[in-house]
Amino acid sequence: MAKIRFEPKGIESEVPEGANLLEAAHEADVPINATCGGTGVCGTCQLKVLVGGVEEDPTPHHLRHPKSEGTVLACRAKVTGDAEVLVLDEGLQSMVGVKKRGLSEMLFTNVRDALAGDEFAPPTRKFHLELTPPSLDDPTGDADRILRELRSRHGLAEVNIDFDILPSLSHLVREADWKVTVTVLFKGTHCRLTNVEAGDTTSCCQYGVAVDVGTTTVVVQLINLVSGEICEEASDYNDQVRSGEDVISRIVYAGKGVGLELLRSQVTDTINRLVERVLGEAGVEASHVSAVVAAGNTTMTHLLLGLPPRYIREAPYVPTIGFPPWLRAARLGLTSLPNAYVYCVGSLASYVGGDITAGVLASDLPRSEELGLYIDVGTNGEMVLGNSDWMVACSCSAGPAFEGGGIKHGMRAVPGAIDAVEIDPVSLEPTVATIAGAVPCGICGSGLIELVAEMFVAKVLDPNGKLNRQVSSSRIRKAEHGYEYVVAWGAETTAGDDIVITEIDIDNLMRAKAAIFAAITLLAESVGVQMSEIARVQIAGGFGAKLNVGKAVTIGLLPDLARSTFSYVGNGSLTGASLVLCSATKLNASVGLVQKMSYMDLSSNPDFMNRYVSALFLPHTDTSLFPSVAAELADSIKHAAGGESS
Amino acid sequence: MAKIRFEPKGIESEVPEGANLLEAAHEADVPINATCGGTGVCGTCQLKVLVGGVEEDPTPHHLRHPKSEGTVLACRAKVTGDAEVLVLDEGLQSMVGVKKRGLSEMLFTNVRDALAGDEFAPPTRKFHLELTPPSLDDPTGDADRILRELRSRHGLAEVNIDFDILPSLSHLVREADWKVTVTVLFKGTHCRLTNVEAGDTTSCCQYGVAVDVGTTTVVVQLINLVSGEICEEASDYNDQVRSGEDVISRIVYAGKGVGLELLRSQVTDTINRLVERVLGEAGVEASHVSAVVAAGNTTMTHLLLGLPPRYIREAPYVPTIGFPPWLRAARLGLTSLPNAYVYCVGSLASYVGGDITAGVLASDLPRSEELGLYIDVGTNGEMVLGNSDWMVACSCSAGPAFEGGGIKHGMRAVPGAIDAVEIDPVSLEPTVATIAGAVPCGICGSGLIELVAEMFVAKVLDPNGKLNRQVSSSRIRKAEHGYEYVVAWGAETTAGDDIVITEIDIDNLMRAKAAIFAAITLLAESVGVQMSEIARVQIAGGFGAKLNVGKAVTIGLLPDLARSTFSYVGNGSLTGASLVLCSATKLNASVGLVQKMSYMDLSSNPDFMNRYVSALFLPHTDTSLFPSVAAELADSIKHAAGGESS
Repeated sequence: MAKIRFEPKGIESEVPEGANLLEAAHEADVPINATCGGTGVCGTCQLKVLVGGVEEDPTPHHLRHPKSEGTVLACRAKVTGDAEVLVLDEGLQSMVGVKKRGLSEMLFTNVRDALAGDEFAPPTRKFHLELTPPSLDDPTGDADRILRELRSRHGLAEVNIDFDILPSLSHLVREADWKVTVTVLFKGTHCRLTNVEAGDTTSCCQYGVAVDVGTTTVVVQLINLVSGEICEEASDYNDQVRSGEDVISRIVYAGKGVGLELLRSQVTDTINRLVERVLGEAGVEASHVSAVVAAGNTTMTHLLLGLPPRYIREAPYVPTIGFPPWLRAARLGLTSLPNAYVYCVGSLASYVGGDITAGVLASDLPRSEELGLYIDVGTNGEMVLGNSDWMVACSCSAGPAFEGGGIKHGMRAVPGAIDAVEIDPVSLEPTVATIAGAVPCGICGSGLIELVAEMFVAKVLDPNGKLNRQVSSSRIRKAEHGYEYVVAWGAETTAGDDIVITEIDIDNLMRAKAAIFAAITLLAESVGVQMSEIARVQIAGGFGAKLNVGKAVTIGLLPDLARSTFSYVGNGSLTGASLVLCSATKLNASVGLVQKMSYMDLSSNPDFMNRYVSALFLPHTDTSLFPSVAAELADSIKHAAGGESS
Repeated sequence: MAKIRFEPKGIESEVPEGANLLEAAHEADVPINATCGGTGVCGTCQLKVLVGGVEEDPTPHHLRHPKSEGTVLACRAKVTGDAEVLVLDEGLQSMVGVKKRGLSEMLFTNVRDALAGDEFAPPTRKFHLELTPPSLDDPTGDADRILRELRSRHGLAEVNIDFDILPSLSHLVREADWKVTVTVLFKGTHCRLTNVEAGDTTSCCQYGVAVDVGTTTVVVQLINLVSGEICEEASDYNDQVRSGEDVISRIVYAGKGVGLELLRSQVTDTINRLVERVLGEAGVEASHVSAVVAAGNTTMTHLLLGLPPRYIREAPYVPTIGFPPWLRAARLGLTSLPNAYVYCVGSLASYVGGDITAGVLASDLPRSEELGLYIDVGTNGEMVLGNSDWMVACSCSAGPAFEGGGIKHGMRAVPGAIDAVEIDPVSLEPTVATIAGAVPCGICGSGLIELVAEMFVAKVLDPNGKLNRQVSSSRIRKAEHGYEYVVAWGAETTAGDDIVITEIDIDNLMRAKAAIFAAITLLAESVGVQMSEIARVQIAGGFGAKLNVGKAVTIGLLPDLARSTFSYVGNGSLTGASLVLCSATKLNASVGLVQKMSYMDLSSNPDFMNRYVSALFLPHTDTSLFPSVAAELADSIKHAAGGESS
C-alpha cells in the first residue's frame, strides 16, 4: 500500500501500489474534475507531484485543456509509492463540497415562501399515535392496531403498510410503550405507512431531500418538512462523468456488460455522499429523512432507477417510464436514507425530462395567462413555451460549447474562468473578468457569449463568424489550425500560455446558438405565436446568473425582446424538486403540467434545418429579427468613428 | 463423498462422509417423518441398512415409536461410506409426494362449483393489450403507454406498476411487437400491474396456487384461474418439523440466533418443492402462476413472512399483523414463482388464524341464518359459533393426543394406523381396522376415540377413565407404569410388539376431549345459546373424514346432537384458500368475516377450568348433557345381558 497526500487540503488516502491516481483521488473524496471520464483527453485532472511515487503514461495526447509544465494527468498516472501531490485546479476544489444555501441561486431560502398558504403539505407526514395497549379482549395485531388508529383518529381509511417495517414492529411498539410516531406517504388516492418510530418525533424530526440529478453535477438540499427551511445544500460532480461526459455516451456505456449497474451505483454513490454531508452539517439523523424528490433528465432518471436507457437513444426516442412510482430509497441503493421514499419528477419525453418539468413547475409559466418561454441551455437545450392554459416543449442538441466543451480554452463556470469581456472598439483590446477574480485559466460559456458578442460589435468578427483579417491587431493571428484572437496573454494566465478563441471555437458556438434559436423559432411558429408576444423569458440552469442577456441577443442566441422580459430562475430542476418535496399539491401539479404539455420533435421536423442554417450568422441572416442589434451596431460604428475623430 | 441409495424408491444421493442420514434423506427429497424434529425421541425415522456405511449413535433412548430389530434411526445415524438403506415406514412414503385431487377430501374439484356465478373473479386477472407503437408524435413511455391503455380500454384508472417489471419492459414490448398480456392484481380500491408477457396468454396461462401451511403438513393445490379446475395437489411434511413439532416449540426456536430465518426458509423450501411438483405434473410453467393464497395459523403465517412470532406466545398474545399485505412471492423466498403475488388469509387472533378464517369462509356459517359450529381439532382446537349475522371464536390447547402425540402407540393417520375399533361387549375382544388395510403399527387420533368409546361402552373402562380391574380378560393387564389394554397382539403388528393403550394414554385423551368440550360449552354460554340450538356442526382438519362422530359424542368430545347435525368439511384451510384465490369477493368476505368475529380468550376465563374439570369424565359429570350416550350404555347393558343369556 502507498500513502498519497492531496494538497492543498491535506487529504490522505492509502491505495495499493499500481492504483490509478484519479481513482485514488475519487476514493479519498478529493474532488477532481475529469470531464472526459478519465480517458486522458480533456486535461482537467492535472496535478503537480510534490514528492514521490507517481508515474505518468508518457504517450502524448492532444488535450482540450493545455497541460502545464511539471504536471501529470491524474487519470494517466499510477501510484508507485508514497507521494504528495498538489491539486492545481482550485476552482474545482471550491466548487464541490457542502455549500450553504443561496449558492444555487435559489429564489427562496424557505420553501413555504414559494407556496400558497395551503400548499405546504409534504407528501410524507408524521402522526403521533398513543395506542391503546392490547388486551385479552382486544388482541388486534400490532400493525392492524396502528392502521385502526389512523383510520379512527385521522380518517385515513386506505393505508397500506410497508412490509419492511413489520419485522421490528412488535418489539418497537412495546419498547415505546405504545406511543409511536408513524410516517405516512400520501400517494394519489391512497396512503402508505412507511415508518414507525418510538415516541413523538412529529415536531423535530421531519426532513426531506431534494436532488437535482444533473448529467455533470448533482445538487442535494436538505429541507425541514415542518418549517420549510432549506437547511443545507451540497453539490458535487456526478460520479458518472467517469463513464462519459454526456447522456449519449452514458447510454452507450449502459448498454455494455455491467455498465448500467455501474452507472446506477455511481449516481447513488454521489447522492449518498452528498446526503451524508448535508446531514452531517445540519446535525440531522438519516433516519429522520422521510422523502426524497429527484429531478433529472430522462436518462439520469432511468440510470438512477437502474432502467436500461437504450430506447431513449433509438427513434422514436421512448423512455421505459415517464412517471416512476414512489420507491423505497434503500431499494435504489440510496442506503444513506433508511426510511425514505423516493419520487422522481415525471418527464414529458426522452429529451424533455423531469428537470424541465420541475423547472417549469417552479417558473411562472403554469400560473400566468401571459405567454412565457422557459429555457434551459446546456449540452442540450430544452424550451417550453406557453401559459396556464397550454404548453409546448421541444429540445435540441446544442453541443458542449456552452459548457466549455469543444472550445480550445473552454471550461466550466468555476473560479478562474473568464466570464465577462469588454473589447475597446478602437484599440480592440479586451478587458476580462474572471469568476472569483482568479487568474484566468480559460473561458466559460457566458464568457464565450460576451466575447463573441463584443468581437462582433467591435467588428473583429464578421457576421459569418470569421475574424476580420483587415484589422491590424497583434491579438488577431494565424496559428497552425487557422485564425485566432488572443483573449489573454500568457503572462496573465495560470498556465502561462495565451488564452485564445479560434475560428473553430466560434464556429462551434455559432452552431450551438443557431440550434437554440432555431428551436425557439419553430416552437413559436408551431403555435402561431410571434416572438414579440412572449411576455417573459425565464432562463434556468447551466449559464447561471452570469449570462449577459444583451450579449446573448447580440449573437442571436436569444430573441430580441426587451431586456426586462428576461429573468434568471436559477437551478429550476432543484427548485421544482424542493416544491414537490414540500407540497403534494405541487406534485400533482407536476403531473398535470406534463399532461398539459405537447411535445414537438425537432429531429423529424424538416423546417428545423432551414431555421438552423438561417441562424448560422451573427445575429441572424434575417436582421429584421434583431432590430436592437442593428441599432447597437450602428451605435458602435458611430462610437468608433467618434473615437477615431477625437 | 458417499453415495446413498434409498430403497424402495431407489432415490440416490451423494453426501459428504459424516453427514447425518436424516438430513441426507431430506436433501435427496426422500420423505421421512421425524416428528420430534430429528432429536431422537419419536422413533419415526427408522431405516433398515441393507448395505454399507451407516453408523448409529448407540446411546439408548426411550422412543415413542418402538424400534424394530435391525433398524437404525436416521436422525441418529451418520454416513461413513456408500450405503443402501430401506425406508420402512411405507405409510410416510405414500402420504407424501404429488397427490391427485380428491385426496384432501375437497368438497369440489372445480372451484367454480363452490362459487356463485359472478363470484368467480380471481384477484389477479390478465388483459391482452395491442398497444399503438410509439411515434415521434407520441413518445409516451412504455410503462405509461400500458397504463394509458388499461385506463382507456379497460377503465382501470388507478394502477400502480410493480417496479420489478420495469428493467426488462422496454425490450419485451418491442420484441413482442407491442402485443402483450399484462397481469393486474386487484387489491381493494386500487390495482397493481404485476407482470407483462409477450403475446396473448390470457386464455391458457393463468394459474394460481392455494397453500394450506399446516404446522405439520403443507398442502399445495395448482388451480387454473380461467376454468377454476383444481389441476394438481401435493402435500409434504413442513420442513419446520425438524425445528420443533408444535407452534410453541417453533416460537421458542425462532427466538434463538438465526432460528427465525431458518424456519422461514424451511417453510418456503417446502412450498417451493411442492409447487415444483405440481407444476411438473401439470406441465405448467412457473411464470404462468400469478397468485398464491396461503392459509395457516397465525404462527405459520408469521414464520412464512419472516416475522418474529415472539408476542404470539406472551400474554396478551398479540401477533405483529393480522392482515398481511399482498407481497411478491420472490420477496418471501418463494423463488419457484417468479411472477406471483402472495396473500395470506387474515387472522382474528394469535390462536385463531388464517386457517380458521379460510375454513369458516368455506363452511356454511357465514351464509346461513341457522346457528352453526365450525370446529378444527388438532394440537389446538379452534371453534367458531355463529351464523351470517355474528360469530364468536375461541381456541384451546388440546395437547397432541388427537394427532397421536403423548400416546404410547399413538401415530398420525397414515397407512398402518388403527383408525377403527369395535369391542365385543361379551368377550371384550377388539376388532381393529387400519388405514389402507396395512398391518397395524399404532393408533391414530380417530382410532383412539373409537377405542376409548368402545372400551367405555363395553365397561372395560369406567367413567373416570380407569380400566376395570374386575373384568377378567388377558387384554387388561398391569404393566410397569400402570394398567393397559392390549389392542393388538405382537404377532399382528409390524414391530412385533403388542399395541396397547395405557391409563396414561386415556388420561391424555380425556384431558384433550375435556378441553375441547369445555371450550364449546363456554362459547355457547358466552352468547346465551343452548347446545340444542346448534343446527349444524362442521368438522374440519386433522381428524379427517374417518372421525366417527357417534364415538366422539360417546366420549364427550362433541356435544350430543343428532348425528345428521354433523358433517366433515375436509381441509377447510385449503378449501378456503382456493376460494380466496379464485374470487376477490371471497377475499373481501374473508376480511369482513374476521371483522364480524368476536374473540373469546379462554386462558383468562375463570369458568374454563370449572368446565374443563366437569368434562374430565366419560362422557361428562353431567350425564344429562349426553342423553344418547346414557341410552347407548343402557342398550349395551341389555345387549351384554342378552348375550350372556344366549
